[in-house]
Amino acid sequence: MINFTYVNPTKVIFGKGTLDQLGPELSKYGKRVLIVTGGGSVKRIGLFDSIVAELDKHNIDYVELSGIKPNPRLDSVYAGIELCRQHGVDFILGVGGGSVIDAAKAISIGVANEIDVWKFFTREVEPAGAPTVPLGCVLTLAASGSEMNANAVITNTETVQKLVLYDCDTFPRFSIMDPEYTYSVPQHHTIYGCVDIVVQVLEQYFSNVPNTPLQDRICEGIVKTAIENTYEVIKKPEDYDVRANLMWCGTLACNFLCGMGKMADWGTHHMEEEIGAWYDVSHGAGLSAIFPSWMRYVMDANVPLFKQYAVRVWEIDPAGKSDEEVAREGIDRTEAFFKEIGSPISLGELDIDDTNIEEMSQRVTKAGPLGNVKKLGKEDVKQIFTMAL
Amino acid sequence: MINFTYVNPTKVIFGKGTLDQLGPELSKYGKRVLIVTGGGSVKRIGLFDSIVAELDKHNIDYVELSGIKPNPRLDSVYAGIELCRQHGVDFILGVGGGSVIDAAKAISIGVANEIDVWKFFTREVEPAGAPTVPLGCVLTLAASGSEMNANAVITNTETVQKLVLYDCDTFPRFSIMDPEYTYSVPQHHTIYGCVDIVVQVLEQYFSNVPNTPLQDRICEGIVKTAIENTYEVIKKPEDYDVRANLMWCGTLACNFLCGMGKMADWGTHHMEEEIGAWYDVSHGAGLSAIFPSWMRYVMDANVPLFKQYAVRVWEIDPAGKSDEEVAREGIDRTEAFFKEIGSPISLGELDIDDTNIEEMSQRVTKAGPLGNVKKLGKEDVKQIFTMAL
Repeated sequence: MINFTYVNPTKVIFGKGTLDQLGPELSKYGKRVLIVTGGGSVKRIGLFDSIVAELDKHNIDYVELSGIKPNPRLDSVYAGIELCRQHGVDFILGVGGGSVIDAAKAISIGVANEIDVWKFFTREVEPAGAPTVPLGCVLTLAASGSEMNANAVITNTETVQKLVLYDCDTFPRFSIMDPEYTYSVPQHHTIYGCVDIVVQVLEQYFSNVPNTPLQDRICEGIVKTAIENTYEVIKKPEDYDVRANLMWCGTLACNFLCGMGKMADWGTHHMEEEIGAWYDVSHGAGLSAIFPSWMRYVMDANVPLFKQYAVRVWEIDPAGKSDEEVAREGIDRTEAFFKEIGSPISLGELDIDDTNIEEMSQRVTKAGPLGNVKKLGKEDVKQIFTMAL
Repeated sequence: MINFTYVNPTKVIFGKGTLDQLGPELSKYGKRVLIVTGGGSVKRIGLFDSIVAELDKHNIDYVELSGIKPNPRLDSVYAGIELCRQHGVDFILGVGGGSVIDAAKAISIGVANEIDVWKFFTREVEPAGAPTVPLGCVLTLAASGSEMNANAVITNTETVQKLVLYDCDTFPRFSIMDPEYTYSVPQHHTIYGCVDIVVQVLEQYFSNVPNTPLQDRICEGIVKTAIENTYEVIKKPEDYDVRANLMWCGTLACNFLCGMGKMADWGTHHMEEEIGAWYDVSHGAGLSAIFPSWMRYVMDANVPLFKQYAVRVWEIDPAGKSDEEVAREGIDRTEAFFKEIGSPISLGELDIDDTNIEEMSQRVTKAGPLGNVKKLGKEDVKQIFTMAL
């Protein structure tokens, strides 16, 4: 096990009817809130009105920033910062999934500092220790885990960059997580969320740090539960327990506890972020399109762990098979799972051809090799993208 | 899954050589520290001197409260509060295992309030919202999980009560967890710590709330890892990874994350606390003496879960057996594990006979029935104690 520091102060308020805790929580921090939302579903399901009623009850004003897109854009972040300054906002409330919460985080650090917020993403300015405006969220999609971590991913369309903000105090002060708000998420978004959960955990799981049995079992438990409940949610989108299980899987997948003491890889996430900078694809769809190719490419660096994954998560019987065969079977099953639930397993399905692969591979490895299971230079990344075509 | 709120702001600093972060962390909170320690091992292994050197480097003064016993006494808490007031202490540092950290927590809330601290334990005064003096810890025993929760258990020898403080802000601000400090823990204490870890998780695991697959798997993962590493630590007390695995198991066993959304039982813990109020036994020893009897007594309330435990944790083959048989085999294996590692499986081994059982059963159920898997009234508790004789 390697040394680590873990801290996560977000207050999770989980379950049916927990929106009634929004007013009391908000009242601790502010009197004028920026409500950040996405494409309109929050209004369609009546959640926006419930939130406004809750704010009214506690005499809290609000201004609104709607229309945050998947792969949230820097432009929207600038617009949010401007709104906050105009209206003297003292709290940011993200209502939606990972994109909305990520935008809220970027606005939070942006408002509290005079420099251009993008410099925290490019790390021209160190975000650690920078002040932030407090933020919270009401979650409506099980996917990114952004509701219980400090990370935010924002796309700059001008520079064609999709970058991660981390290392700063952009933890939501609270996250209200009512699984019922996810009932109406369109099936393909639900599924991409599940893919995100599975891949996020596996990027922490596949590591060359030896002897981390507790971390391994927690990761396997999240992945196995997410897979089982993905099959279930397709059949029963309004089953409370299924939605609750997926929501809690999503949070524990990316509050980073499951991988503490290991060394996370994140190679696939960086490659997907590069895809996302060029093409407007759903994050989960981009992940499932390349992850099996990544697994096949790096597997030989740690066959025993890929075998353990195959046996424990997919219950593959290792009898009479070589370790490599068992490991490969685990990868095949992962790919078959993505296919079965309707998530792409190739870039072709996303209308991505080899046009930009050279430049994408160049750019994503510019700062050095990707990943940890196997260090991936430009040519490695190019091969993985090509395998995924 | 039931609704829950989860928040845990403790900063965990885990690994070899992490004591060098003590000074920088302490400096954020105070200039004069009360160092709380136990029976002397902290000095024998040189840790106390290293801490003092670290404080000197950062110009932090200290006063010392040593001699905290297992089942820490209210008298020591009063002594600590007195010391803090005399010396204007602004930070409490517990250096030791659960008993020391629990005492530090009780001192933390005691110093910051003018009323008798015991009233927070008896709940004559509500501890929620009460001010506390910040505290931190350097952990030297994997057991209670006190390093990452807000609970404290204190014994009042005058009233013969062992009570739990909870619901207040006594989370350590930071916990420095270097597994190397646990190398020299005597074997029986290491083992009782392992028992505590296993039983704490199982008291959260055995619950009648249906459909909590993620929580179940995390609990099973902690228990299985703790069991495997208990066998290992007996053979290799100075193996870093074994000690690290146990230490992380201990923290995740009782930071309460694993049981969120279930309804924890805690019947056995309350019964053991009653034992601890009358007899000076190690907490882990008291737990292993009664837990198998508790399991047998309540099993019929949720046979499928006891069967799941037997199959997943103990890998018992269910083929050709009734659910009850499989479940009972899981209980037998748990008891055999305790016996094998040298922890008592009866009260007799702790020189406890039936003298006080009547009164203990009466007192522990005074405020109402214990537990959740099966609600235990006085007669139930008496039967379990009697089964355990």
